[in-house]
Amino acid sequence: MSSAACIFCKIIKGDIPSFKLFENEKVFAFLDIQPLSRGHTLVIPKFHGAKLTDIPDEDLLEILPVAKKIAKASGAEDFNILQNNGAIAHQVVGHVHFHMIPKPNEQEGLTIGWPAQETDMDKLKALHEEIKSKI
Amino acid sequence: MSSAACIFCKIIKGDIPSFKLFENEKVFAFLDIQPLSRGHTLVIPKFHGAKLTDIPDEDLLEILPVAKKIAKASGAEDFNILQNNGAIAHQVVGHVHFHMIPKPNEQEGLTIGWPAQETDMDKLKALHEEIKSKI
Repeated sequence: MSSAACIFCKIIKGDIPSFKLFENEKVFAFLDIQPLSRGHTLVIPKFHGAKLTDIPDEDLLEILPVAKKIAKASGAEDFNILQNNGAIAHQVVGHVHFHMIPKPNEQEGLTIGWPAQETDMDKLKALHEEIKSKI
Repeated sequence: MSSAACIFCKIIKGDIPSFKLFENEKVFAFLDIQPLSRGHTLVIPKFHGAKLTDIPDEDLLEILPVAKKIAKASGAEDFNILQNNGAIAHQVVGHVHFHMIPKPNEQEGLTIGWPAQETDMDKLKALHEEIKSKI
């Protein structure tokens, strides 16, 4: 379940120190030491896996309640929850992690680009059938 | 638990049609009709609340397993999970929603700006004590 080479597995084990905010059987949370804003925190499953699709459901259940708890404690009014899968999607460490990033002003915190595509109902209808058939 | 004026509550009730991909007692998922990429889906709690901090824990538990199920079914290799809280954090609809946004290439999908701050261990240590005391 853990990977010897993984920096986040080492943090969970305590082999690398961290500013730990929360820990239970399944979830670990700690301050990001290169924050985008004050209170930027990482919430991770203890189960080692690179992508969301690698993590068993039971190891995902408590992630959001913990992120919520920390968002509240941080005092952030506005914030983003972000989890990146794959280098092209901005993932740097290969162990699933959820960023809780306070957004106190335009300059600090996450900035987002939103290249929305035009609505194409025919394409959406075909895609809907395709994805539904695979669920 | 639902808000008469909320567009997502109307989608959940079926008063506004949607490309629904999944529904259970707590969670509803449907295709975004102005997608950033093919397969862009919204996963939402049925409980109406504007921000993550407004949603009861029990209504959050199944969100990530559903997002994972849909990511798998979409066939996306790389993707982002994003949930925005507050207009400054890019939230448009005032009902909590998690985007599952496939990232097939540099042009399509979410683009992210990452204005990381310098590591300041003294500030982090003080912040750590402060947030921990509020959890």
